[in-house]
Amino acid sequence: MSERIIKAFKTAETEKISHLDYFNIAVSVDCVILGYENKQLKVLLIKSDLEEFSGLNSLLGDLVRPDEDLDEASYRILRERTGLNDVYLEQVQTFGRIGRHPSGRVVTTAYFSLLDLHHHQLRLSHNDLHWHPISKVGKLAFDHKDILDSCLHRLRQQVLERPLIFSLLPEKFSLRQLQEVYEAILGTELDRRNFRKKVSLKDWLVDLGEMETDVPHRPGKLYKLNPALKKRLRARLRVS
Amino acid sequence: MSERIIKAFKTAETEKISHLDYFNIAVSVDCVILGYENKQLKVLLIKSDLEEFSGLNSLLGDLVRPDEDLDEASYRILRERTGLNDVYLEQVQTFGRIGRHPSGRVVTTAYFSLLDLHHHQLRLSHNDLHWHPISKVGKLAFDHKDILDSCLHRLRQQVLERPLIFSLLPEKFSLRQLQEVYEAILGTELDRRNFRKKVSLKDWLVDLGEMETDVPHRPGKLYKLNPALKKRLRARLRVS
Repeated sequence: MSERIIKAFKTAETEKISHLDYFNIAVSVDCVILGYENKQLKVLLIKSDLEEFSGLNSLLGDLVRPDEDLDEASYRILRERTGLNDVYLEQVQTFGRIGRHPSGRVVTTAYFSLLDLHHHQLRLSHNDLHWHPISKVGKLAFDHKDILDSCLHRLRQQVLERPLIFSLLPEKFSLRQLQEVYEAILGTELDRRNFRKKVSLKDWLVDLGEMETDVPHRPGKLYKLNPALKKRLRARLRVS
Repeated sequence: MSERIIKAFKTAETEKISHLDYFNIAVSVDCVILGYENKQLKVLLIKSDLEEFSGLNSLLGDLVRPDEDLDEASYRILRERTGLNDVYLEQVQTFGRIGRHPSGRVVTTAYFSLLDLHHHQLRLSHNDLHWHPISKVGKLAFDHKDILDSCLHRLRQQVLERPLIFSLLPEKFSLRQLQEVYEAILGTELDRRNFRKKVSLKDWLVDLGEMETDVPHRPGKLYKLNPALKKRLRARLRVS
């Protein structure tokens, strides 16, 4: 295609000079770390150290440093605050409403992870960092309740489509255990027969031909995750 | 839980003063607008007006204004550059590598849409704005090739799970037309029999009991999208 217009190019420098008041934003990262334990879904919260939000909990977050990539910042913050360094973080969504932060314009990117709490030990010393049951989360600092709700909404959509939650189960599990994880995540009780029918339509499970032992109820059949999916799941959890 | 430590609160103001060099970032929006036309997937590109990227195409993007919400900026930019004002934009991912922009630190959020080009007229006057076949996209300005590839990757994952692409088809369509759309998006030819088997396993289609007319090949059966899904798809496209 021929160029019909003679264009006036800008340089990166003149572009910046003509937009100086645009370069006044800070970017932060907020980590939405969900954990499963004792049939409950929990989220990692910390007491806000800002006077404006005194008494409120917030997600784990911090400003991105001037010399730091956005994705790197998420891992740095999680490591610094919790000691966790073997967790895959998935970027979920960026929140950029004006006025969302009292210090000035701060645009924040939310990162998400879903953990089995039995396999992850935290250093829980810092600012009342704690696992908070999702069902009991009230008001949070900043727009963190919106951020949490967006992540939950997305997780609830995805658990029905992809085998995300098998990282929360032991190697061998019963359909009862599987249903308990789903109920914790979806925040609702599921009909046992409907649930089993739906799950059986997926190619997610392999019947091991074994039964549960030492359980306080009628032993159920044991299953494992379809090995083909396990490979895909591992790839997903490790490679960004 | 009792508070074991007496905490020194910061205020929003002292927090900002101690992090002044963090508030030097600009945030931009880049729109990845994909369109389907004549069995081809295309992306909306524009000639970069930065000297540093002279001769290269870029995605449609701009800096977010100081008084503008992030999501609003995406619609403003699309409207200003193309005249399009009836398109749903989905936020996809934020790119925040240091050094990605020659003017300074600019973190960019990518927004995505998938259009049937027959239903959307653009004002194509501005800076060689044009529809570029995906298969012929070469080097792009900034990290826009990475951004485009990430969006494509996500779209290709999702079209197999969700009935996203029916907005690209007429009300009544044949399996041949459906396969053509899939092939354009996935960028690969599909085996006809395998494709039909896979599609028939979904609950997406309703057989209309009618045949194609006026086609240069053997007429095929006509289908429509399952009305239940159509409702969900509409809700998805309209409500953010």
